[in-house]
Amino acid sequence: MIKSITGKIDFIESLRGKKATFILALSNTKTANIKGITQAGIPGMIHLTPTLDSEFVCTGEVRSLENIAETPKGVPTPALITRGIHLLNPYSRVEILDLGLEVKPKIDYFKVHSFNIEPSDNIAKGANIDAETLFQKGVEFGNSYECKDEYIILGESVPSGTTTAMATAIGLKYKVDHAFSSSFKDVPNDIREKTLKLALSNLEEKYDIFDVLSKVSDNMLIFNAGFILGLNNKIPLVLAGGTQMACVLLIVNRILQLMGGTINTSNLSLCTTKWVAKDENSDIKALLELLNFPINAYYSDFDFSLSSHPALKLYDQGEAKEGVGAGGALIYGELNGLSQEEITKKIEDFLK
Amino acid sequence: MIKSITGKIDFIESLRGKKATFILALSNTKTANIKGITQAGIPGMIHLTPTLDSEFVCTGEVRSLENIAETPKGVPTPALITRGIHLLNPYSRVEILDLGLEVKPKIDYFKVHSFNIEPSDNIAKGANIDAETLFQKGVEFGNSYECKDEYIILGESVPSGTTTAMATAIGLKYKVDHAFSSSFKDVPNDIREKTLKLALSNLEEKYDIFDVLSKVSDNMLIFNAGFILGLNNKIPLVLAGGTQMACVLLIVNRILQLMGGTINTSNLSLCTTKWVAKDENSDIKALLELLNFPINAYYSDFDFSLSSHPALKLYDQGEAKEGVGAGGALIYGELNGLSQEEITKKIEDFLK
Repeated sequence: MIKSITGKIDFIESLRGKKATFILALSNTKTANIKGITQAGIPGMIHLTPTLDSEFVCTGEVRSLENIAETPKGVPTPALITRGIHLLNPYSRVEILDLGLEVKPKIDYFKVHSFNIEPSDNIAKGANIDAETLFQKGVEFGNSYECKDEYIILGESVPSGTTTAMATAIGLKYKVDHAFSSSFKDVPNDIREKTLKLALSNLEEKYDIFDVLSKVSDNMLIFNAGFILGLNNKIPLVLAGGTQMACVLLIVNRILQLMGGTINTSNLSLCTTKWVAKDENSDIKALLELLNFPINAYYSDFDFSLSSHPALKLYDQGEAKEGVGAGGALIYGELNGLSQEEITKKIEDFLK
Repeated sequence: MIKSITGKIDFIESLRGKKATFILALSNTKTANIKGITQAGIPGMIHLTPTLDSEFVCTGEVRSLENIAETPKGVPTPALITRGIHLLNPYSRVEILDLGLEVKPKIDYFKVHSFNIEPSDNIAKGANIDAETLFQKGVEFGNSYECKDEYIILGESVPSGTTTAMATAIGLKYKVDHAFSSSFKDVPNDIREKTLKLALSNLEEKYDIFDVLSKVSDNMLIFNAGFILGLNNKIPLVLAGGTQMACVLLIVNRILQLMGGTINTSNLSLCTTKWVAKDENSDIKALLELLNFPINAYYSDFDFSLSSHPALKLYDQGEAKEGVGAGGALIYGELNGLSQEEITKKIEDFLK
């Protein structure tokens, strides 16, 4: 079942039965190298997570490492969900946005959009991003992008991305205490708060939006804010993600305020998982309500209640929540007739 | 599951979720009238097999005979597989290539491309094909063909086509002992070898490629070699077949050698069945490795292990292996989310 977070169900229902392009935005921030800050990958190999996720979604194989990324507790990547839907009811095409990767995915034939972007630095020391140029690249890409399908699902894989998203929102002067999710159940608040504090200490009062983003954000957030504005509502866009995608919208909001601009969001939405929507440690709805424009947001009420696989049950226990566009993928599956049973079975097949 | 024979999985994975045009190439060679040489049809009525196959794939009905072609042992035509996939997850369109048929299929509304080609003669006495003209017709068709979908699946139905393919490969001086499949489990080697010997005895040392093809080949092989070169990599093409389609590539290879030409095969692939890929009496991989260009080749691991229907079990026993694009059809089904269970059930429905 698809449930509404904000707005009516009509937008997403109007996409029922339609085929989508799945775009996966990948980037690395050295923030992820801070010990214990993220659960999204194998310790010491965290930087490989977006690379492996994209290889698995596209080909069903992980090529840049022997086994697919699992967290220390053994929570498998949400790429399993995204790939499972692709097997049952495929996206018409999968495209990759390389927004600064340490290791390029080893895939042929799939469209990989490259923009000459480097991984960003640790926000504790300053992310060192040319935010204005990066934002402009996003705008240009959105402007020139021609979708071959009826809509776009935009997912992301950025380890420690919830931390950079939170720093970004605070840096942009939103009141967002406790509104941000993490890939941990027991959010590592000590490490995260120390990182945030260090990151925010690099900001100066005179900074404009782009100065702030340059210091405390990540490539995915900034580029996609540009992408949304560049697309300019010309095609339905599903932001497939949780608090990170909400942060992309918060950036859009501030940039519009800066420019005195407006945005038509009638073709824009955010789709996430139940694990994010019901997360007690974050509040996606509160984040979306900070926006000065209306936004349709939904979650899939899919969970692993039909599974007895211990690794998958960890999702229901809040150990993992979202990523690699899993929420948008689940909603795409539901919009095309897939049942919770089928989806569960297909994902379980990967773990055999 | 889709498995690789040669090359990586990426090419075929990039077609996941996309819609295809299914082109069925039909022709008769009088070689099929040699008693016992082929199992692909009803004795005395073998020449009708391509006609009936095309009628059934397009309309679900056989019109030029009361019952659909069955072999003497009761193996149903692989057209059942191709049609079954079309019912579950349709090709966007089915088009017919009439490459020399004794009896035209009785179908309206479907595009039938005709080229004024006559059935070819028995290779034991000389096939009597104007190979250069036929090849040129293929090139022109490929050049001018505009695909309305994202890729093409090219299947064939040519009774005794494995024998003419083998004669062609040997005539073109490839070392192919035991590399060719047949529609028989117990390949009728006596009859086939006698036919091959007679066919090859008509060749003279001074013959060029087209002289050889004129004597020992069949229309489908020659035309499609031209078609591939004429298409010139402009759209993804799945050669849906086993050793016969491999032979088409062997012809392409020799023609390129003759002309000193090269081919970009990045959009070209061969897709076949498990029954061909695992056949102990033939070696599709060895055939493909004779090519001087790389080729992506795959098989569907679909089999009838979920069926208890005795006629279908004969496939798993090696009595029938491929034809009418069955392997490509199965891969198309899998690329669009069909399960082995669904496909099996749909094919069983035809036999009720």
